[in-house]
Amino acid sequence: MFGMRVRIALAEKGIKYEYKEEDLKNKSPLLLEMNPIKKQIPVLIHNGKPVCESLIIVQYIDEVWNDKSPLLPSDPYQRAQARFWADFVDKKVFGDAQKVCSTKGEEQEAGKKEFLETLKTLEVELGDKPYFGGETFGYVDLSFITFYSWFHAYEVLGNINIEAECPKIIAWAKRCMQKEAVAKTLPDQKKVYEEHVARLRKMFVSE
Amino acid sequence: MFGMRVRIALAEKGIKYEYKEEDLKNKSPLLLEMNPIKKQIPVLIHNGKPVCESLIIVQYIDEVWNDKSPLLPSDPYQRAQARFWADFVDKKVFGDAQKVCSTKGEEQEAGKKEFLETLKTLEVELGDKPYFGGETFGYVDLSFITFYSWFHAYEVLGNINIEAECPKIIAWAKRCMQKEAVAKTLPDQKKVYEEHVARLRKMFVSE
Repeated sequence: MFGMRVRIALAEKGIKYEYKEEDLKNKSPLLLEMNPIKKQIPVLIHNGKPVCESLIIVQYIDEVWNDKSPLLPSDPYQRAQARFWADFVDKKVFGDAQKVCSTKGEEQEAGKKEFLETLKTLEVELGDKPYFGGETFGYVDLSFITFYSWFHAYEVLGNINIEAECPKIIAWAKRCMQKEAVAKTLPDQKKVYEEHVARLRKMFVSE
Repeated sequence: MFGMRVRIALAEKGIKYEYKEEDLKNKSPLLLEMNPIKKQIPVLIHNGKPVCESLIIVQYIDEVWNDKSPLLPSDPYQRAQARFWADFVDKKVFGDAQKVCSTKGEEQEAGKKEFLETLKTLEVELGDKPYFGGETFGYVDLSFITFYSWFHAYEVLGNINIEAECPKIIAWAKRCMQKEAVAKTLPDQKKVYEEHVARLRKMFVSE
């Protein structure tokens, strides 16, 4: 979810880059050198210097390559609102989705309820705008859309129907997927489910 | 810790404002109206519109009143670094300090160790600079200094000596306290301890 944000931002800006996949069970010396504090992906290395944390990297990309496809609004109030909602996605959507995927029974029921409430809160914020950024795809859209690859997995693991509960979120996600920068970055939902779900079930919900 | 960041930023910029204290056990209709999603303080109301989340508010203040006392660096790379360290303070210092204050026995020992490691990481980042912002007080200084009011409480509750472990952090904190915007905002350490410690002990470590 986090690394893909950076790749979408770079694609939106039309910046060429070299992509290095990391084996998170066996982190490379380069990753440990470039992000010694958090030891996490993504890291953007630009002019030999590292920038860490996905939302900070996206802001950095937007500030350095500021001549094309602005991601954050130029108005300080709108920018603060965009930061608020990206932070909300970061803290709430990921945590809630983890509960849907990694618990069972009553705990999972509570997690599902919370996850759907979070999506509905985002649906209210989206309103009738085509994007969270208004008329154009922006910072909040980019922060949230990377979760879309996991929607099928959430639906199967949680036995929920996101489209029935939040039709505007699904319409928004499909709108985002029509953008080349998003479509070419996000993996297919079914593939994500097949690749990860067996591992997830094994890790978290073994009977 | 979080509300004080906003007050220091406003004081640094020389902005007059009306301060409203909130009873967090009985939140005001104004707070619930202005921050319906998180229902938390601080909220800055400017031109009748709310900005929420302390670090987002501080960035907003820095962008709107950009003619005096810059808080974030102007260089995008330095700005990304400042955001990284403010985020580190937000996520690590608060959580670690909570463990020092709210646990006992082995769990508290582990919490103390982690808390001191976090402070030492920050000490390495500070290095020989007078401030995290370099020659001037900035965004990371402001994000971190508000914890200083609690240092005496952490020392007593955790039976630790922060100055012995991290002398540069204490020298930095004393340097920040010489600034009027900080000194007039931060409550006295002994007062914080006396006011909160009885409540904390009762809440968390009752035998």
